[in-house]
Amino acid sequence: METITIKDIAKALHLSTSTVSRALRNSYEINPETKRLVTEYAQKMQYRPNPIALSLRESRSKSIGVIIPEIANNFFSQLINGIESVAYDLGYYVVIFQSHESYEREVAHTNFLVSRKVDGLLISLSSLTTNLLHFQELMTKGLPIVFMDRVPNEIATHKVVADNFEGSYGATQHLIRAGRRRIAHLTSPIYLSITTERLAGYRKALEDHGIAFDEKYVRYFAHGGKDEGENRDGIRALMQLPEPPDAIFSASDRLSTGCLAVLQNEKVKVPEQVALVGFTNSGVADLFNPPLTTVVQPAMEMGQQAMNLLIRLIEHPQAQNNFETMAFKTSLNVRESSAGA
Amino acid sequence: METITIKDIAKALHLSTSTVSRALRNSYEINPETKRLVTEYAQKMQYRPNPIALSLRESRSKSIGVIIPEIANNFFSQLINGIESVAYDLGYYVVIFQSHESYEREVAHTNFLVSRKVDGLLISLSSLTTNLLHFQELMTKGLPIVFMDRVPNEIATHKVVADNFEGSYGATQHLIRAGRRRIAHLTSPIYLSITTERLAGYRKALEDHGIAFDEKYVRYFAHGGKDEGENRDGIRALMQLPEPPDAIFSASDRLSTGCLAVLQNEKVKVPEQVALVGFTNSGVADLFNPPLTTVVQPAMEMGQQAMNLLIRLIEHPQAQNNFETMAFKTSLNVRESSAGA
Repeated sequence: METITIKDIAKALHLSTSTVSRALRNSYEINPETKRLVTEYAQKMQYRPNPIALSLRESRSKSIGVIIPEIANNFFSQLINGIESVAYDLGYYVVIFQSHESYEREVAHTNFLVSRKVDGLLISLSSLTTNLLHFQELMTKGLPIVFMDRVPNEIATHKVVADNFEGSYGATQHLIRAGRRRIAHLTSPIYLSITTERLAGYRKALEDHGIAFDEKYVRYFAHGGKDEGENRDGIRALMQLPEPPDAIFSASDRLSTGCLAVLQNEKVKVPEQVALVGFTNSGVADLFNPPLTTVVQPAMEMGQQAMNLLIRLIEHPQAQNNFETMAFKTSLNVRESSAGA
Repeated sequence: METITIKDIAKALHLSTSTVSRALRNSYEINPETKRLVTEYAQKMQYRPNPIALSLRESRSKSIGVIIPEIANNFFSQLINGIESVAYDLGYYVVIFQSHESYEREVAHTNFLVSRKVDGLLISLSSLTTNLLHFQELMTKGLPIVFMDRVPNEIATHKVVADNFEGSYGATQHLIRAGRRRIAHLTSPIYLSITTERLAGYRKALEDHGIAFDEKYVRYFAHGGKDEGENRDGIRALMQLPEPPDAIFSASDRLSTGCLAVLQNEKVKVPEQVALVGFTNSGVADLFNPPLTTVVQPAMEMGQQAMNLLIRLIEHPQAQNNFETMAFKTSLNVRESSAGA
């Protein structure tokens, strides 16, 4: 039996060879109807791609785009280093953009990256992103996207996250075992996936240890710890409660260092008066006064895995049905800030 | 007198209008001989560009590339935020790459950005870059480049730096006034501009205060503070001198936090036994034990100014003769780590 080529398919369907070629690899540039036409005909005629031609595909840019909230955060800079380490070995370029927690910038960066023909996107959502249309449209067109850390429930694709529930559960349980009972939780806006997951772990740990969940000990910070005034006001309000907390568990890097700074300024003794545990990937938590007990995410590994999953989507666009959400275990580094009362 | 147009110049010189247009705005895509021909003829015929046409130039990508050693460093992330704040207002996209202190990556990133037709580059040299040909070639072709922080002497263009000499002089003088006499200096490889400038300020301050410069108190760290083993060995060697230092002045973010970590591990009392001052833009230096006296660079302003200068080169390529090196004053934040003996 003679082998059928892209040229034959193009001729039969009155399409250009480049359209057929793109349709066969599920390019987002080709409309779904044409793709259906091409793939059905190719299947019928038992078309088999030429593996050498595959490796010569001209329209790959060999670059991928990364959009994260900000780079001045150890978690995200380590995540990027993980992405880059895999990308560099495979000859991909990594183009980095910051959303600065702005939905508008996230949309603008996405459009720019697509106009520059990146082969795929790695995204960690801005804290103000509630509308996901800019990603959904691209995915419908076949652009590979993998989400990291702050991920949307509404979109089916590969996702790489930390096991936030377990990380929070462990941190809260650690404070309970250190004899604390009134444990406050500082966190980011509620509509981020990481916020709800970390809140759920905190709540479950309290309940499993017979401590009632009390909403007044939970503070949401609209600026996620970046606004010193908001940090100060929020923590002061907690400390002025009739029964102030004897421990604080903070759910982000900025909130952890911001909280320690406020407690120092307010002359609250850590850990004697208030024990402190915080999510952070800071490399200098052991230099703090007191050294800070931290929940650390394996950011480097998460970045590597996100890039591996994205490459899989780019290089095998046909096999896009089995999406994975990979959850990575966090680790608890116990230091002085959470010592027993 | 009739107005001469690009079309007229093209006809007279047997060139395409697009070549003439590019030659007139000094595009790096046009060879120098053609540029000379076009600009001489345009001058002779008193050609004046049409300001409306100028704003419609099609070949601008409205994007610029930034290559820095690493983003996981507060100085560089703040520098990028400054660059982005100006870029965003002017509608430019900022594409960020890390060299990870590798000359090869710096060259590869440069080539990639140029292939993607960025309008200009903002560069802070990797610590391993000694050959500058990859930048010199692009500048000869007319690509606008502005250097920041780690800048080459050999290339004439705009440069934005901190006043490293003064910053170092002030930090060293502060330690002398706190009663210290054997002041060690931890720094990066000697061929970086920032290393020689900071070393010179340190040396001059010692000499102005009657303290002989002594090479044995200067340690160069090939990994700039990123290698814990190298940090430990270097600082131990200093502390094992017959006359160990009574103060340390470190010249980079990583060396400052790295040094504090080693001194804590080695049970060296700061500031009683060794006072410590370091260059760093860390936002958490006041949380350290003890709070760290720092030399801070106005990174945000430096980034803004670098972007302004780059925009000037992009939008007025003709006026490329008056290059500026803008030096920004650092500030000394005195905290407990450098208290008097």
